[in-house]
Amino acid sequence: MGKKDNQFVQEITPMEVDFPQWYTDVITKTDMVDYAPIKGFMVIKPYGYAMWEKIQNFLDNRYKATGHKNCYFPLLIPESLLQKEADHIEGFAPEVAWVTHGGNKKLEERLCIRPTSETIICTMYSKWLKSYRELPYLYNQWCSVVRWEKTTRPFLRTSEFLWQEGHTLHETKEEAMAETVQQLNDYIAVCKDVLAIPVITGQKSESEKFAGGEITYTIEAMMKDGKALQSGTSHFLGKHFTEAFDITYSDREGNLANPYHTSWGASTRLIGGLVMTHSDNRGLVLPPKVAPIQVVIIPIAAQKGNVMEKVDEIYAALKARGIEVELDDRDNYSPGWKFNEWEMKGVPVRIEIGPKDIENDQAMVFRRDTLEKEAYALEGLDEKINTLLDTIQVDMYNKAKAFMDENTTVVQNMDEFKVMLEEKPGFAKAMWCGDAECEAQIKEETTATIRCMPFEQENLGCKCFHCGKEAKNMVIVGKAY
Amino acid sequence: MGKKDNQFVQEITPMEVDFPQWYTDVITKTDMVDYAPIKGFMVIKPYGYAMWEKIQNFLDNRYKATGHKNCYFPLLIPESLLQKEADHIEGFAPEVAWVTHGGNKKLEERLCIRPTSETIICTMYSKWLKSYRELPYLYNQWCSVVRWEKTTRPFLRTSEFLWQEGHTLHETKEEAMAETVQQLNDYIAVCKDVLAIPVITGQKSESEKFAGGEITYTIEAMMKDGKALQSGTSHFLGKHFTEAFDITYSDREGNLANPYHTSWGASTRLIGGLVMTHSDNRGLVLPPKVAPIQVVIIPIAAQKGNVMEKVDEIYAALKARGIEVELDDRDNYSPGWKFNEWEMKGVPVRIEIGPKDIENDQAMVFRRDTLEKEAYALEGLDEKINTLLDTIQVDMYNKAKAFMDENTTVVQNMDEFKVMLEEKPGFAKAMWCGDAECEAQIKEETTATIRCMPFEQENLGCKCFHCGKEAKNMVIVGKAY
Repeated sequence: MGKKDNQFVQEITPMEVDFPQWYTDVITKTDMVDYAPIKGFMVIKPYGYAMWEKIQNFLDNRYKATGHKNCYFPLLIPESLLQKEADHIEGFAPEVAWVTHGGNKKLEERLCIRPTSETIICTMYSKWLKSYRELPYLYNQWCSVVRWEKTTRPFLRTSEFLWQEGHTLHETKEEAMAETVQQLNDYIAVCKDVLAIPVITGQKSESEKFAGGEITYTIEAMMKDGKALQSGTSHFLGKHFTEAFDITYSDREGNLANPYHTSWGASTRLIGGLVMTHSDNRGLVLPPKVAPIQVVIIPIAAQKGNVMEKVDEIYAALKARGIEVELDDRDNYSPGWKFNEWEMKGVPVRIEIGPKDIENDQAMVFRRDTLEKEAYALEGLDEKINTLLDTIQVDMYNKAKAFMDENTTVVQNMDEFKVMLEEKPGFAKAMWCGDAECEAQIKEETTATIRCMPFEQENLGCKCFHCGKEAKNMVIVGKAY
Repeated sequence: MGKKDNQFVQEITPMEVDFPQWYTDVITKTDMVDYAPIKGFMVIKPYGYAMWEKIQNFLDNRYKATGHKNCYFPLLIPESLLQKEADHIEGFAPEVAWVTHGGNKKLEERLCIRPTSETIICTMYSKWLKSYRELPYLYNQWCSVVRWEKTTRPFLRTSEFLWQEGHTLHETKEEAMAETVQQLNDYIAVCKDVLAIPVITGQKSESEKFAGGEITYTIEAMMKDGKALQSGTSHFLGKHFTEAFDITYSDREGNLANPYHTSWGASTRLIGGLVMTHSDNRGLVLPPKVAPIQVVIIPIAAQKGNVMEKVDEIYAALKARGIEVELDDRDNYSPGWKFNEWEMKGVPVRIEIGPKDIENDQAMVFRRDTLEKEAYALEGLDEKINTLLDTIQVDMYNKAKAFMDENTTVVQNMDEFKVMLEEKPGFAKAMWCGDAECEAQIKEETTATIRCMPFEQENLGCKCFHCGKEAKNMVIVGKAY
């Protein structure tokens, strides 16, 4: 590999040297995202946005298949509405953006840009809902929200991000709980089937749950630096909002009742999680299901013999299978330069084909995830590539799962926890007393937080790993984004 | 039809009595839209949003097929950026919403919510573009924008609306002009193939063109009250913005050059146009390609014999063809009540089937657009319904086209024009001098405006219909939304 060919690799800071810088290098040099001229805001470039579209398609299809419908609620929320649910305003007021003037006139009431839409949506639901016959309400919207953040990082934490927010109403608590679980399952599915990200699933503690909610379920993924990324949350809101917003309906007995309520959201943050789960010092490593380009074909000595003819054949065969394939026939770059560029961009499979390969009825096939190169017979190449893409998807998930498992450590006390944080950063599995004060101290002493109380509980002992009092739950503890 | 069965029809104000009220009745009573608690803002309900999704799918597929890519630029734009192009700030400043506080702190610089994104996008393009090899830039975004409007009507003119905005850069003027035309053609196509709306296509006058642009192409549709609705615009922006924002690239000769620039947008306004082109006093009339529900099946005497068995068969056969079909098996409403509800909702085809129909191996098929009911043999029903949906799509377009043609009148002078406005409101075809002052007077005297200079010019005479001076162009003049 010549010096010039190597330039992409050299441009990315190794993750062992500076993990945050590595992340920034990867997402900016691959043209996924750029910094906007306003602090904390990002521009999602086509390569990054194409990943968001794959996430959207997957989730949107599942939502529609389960009877959910999309709609659109206003961007702006009057201050008085935001204040109706006490915990909610306390949680969100410090981070909203305020519109004070519209069309050169000062507004009578300040409007905030939605940080989330419970308040405006509940206002409308209160107007619409009349009878139990209309329930459940299963509505979702795709939109952008604004939360004024002090420290930001593209995709992970930005003052504006794109997301979906589902808001449902139900007759019974059981139905609402089932919806909350179903939506968490959809998030687990998009992580596994599209992003190849394994997650821990569980319930948030009282201090970490949604402002104004009753129960928050979460999925937590482990990044390559061992930190946790909260990647999607589904909230059972009980009747907190439906009472505060006076949403009532005539029930089966003809009495006025407040419905049960859920909300759930996942955002462009998932793209940050995707990068930090799989990528390496050469750049992005993308699972085929989210890769904007799944296969790149690079002709070698394209001017010779029947190279381009063969290349066009392969291209057409892959395309016909619905594979997203790109032919890189630029004549102003060397094959080596192209190899590096597409490796950096994380394209799962590269096919190289030149005169010698054609003589041998073969093509060289390179896997981005394992960096292995192998000769494939040209006969039935498209089918084999199709199978390979499926294999890569599964392999990447399994590799990430093994990494998460390896870096999850049982700890019995704070000494063990601190050693873990120092020597093997990742998730700690520990018993906890359930006390909010104790939880706050853990955070203060270590900056680590209780990520969740996993659904799959284990009994690791009877004492809280921090305060030593009687333990209530097994929890996952770790530093988080 | 019993009194109760008729209640939907009675709820809609006849369009001859009060056209604006008719429009409001149709869009709100069919659950397309509702008023938000902030003046001028709307909530797009699932039935209306599903129409937007069909519009989006059609356009997005065309954009992708022609090499365009989606991306996302920030919601907020610093005041200083908005001011960089002089005509642009003059055009948009009076109608933007200003964010002055973020997270409890006063901002150093006011940020406006994007009324359109040329300024923020050009800022980024200026940072990105280096070489002619990267051109053309073919980017689009789907988002919401805010323009503080004084008089609003859901879909037609709202302070927030959803749209797409394409922003492209090109090496040559010819390429940029071709893009401008191509995008107008996409708007013509979505109007015809999805919404069954015929349009007049042409160029805006200097006073009506985009603030900061060079040439604006428009499509203008005729509503049932004879008024024009500007339904999509495509702008050739020349180098106005690329110079103001210092977007340069190294051209084929190695010199620094400013690229040519286009932008183009269509919005949820199209949904308002859809309603006012086709609907009637019973409610919505939807072309099949945009109808969220294309066929509704209503069982008659569902409890009898094998009615439900037959209904399920028909349902499954239609579904298998990809037709969006709904089975209305509610037992708390009479068939008559259901007929009215689905007519009001504009479902293109209704299938009624009861014991007698089954005896005769037939079903009754009702067309919403013509209000005709006909017996169809059950044999091959799904195929015939499929064909019928295509027929309805074409018939609705042709009917609307005939209406537009009938209500387009050649006028030679202001007297004729005023008679037309009074007696046969619609489009006037007239010769015009091209003078901005003359144009302003027409508006002042009649509130009508020059909608466009059609691409298909005719020579109707040599004098301006208003000032009598030498005419330059044939124009379409009319009152507009």
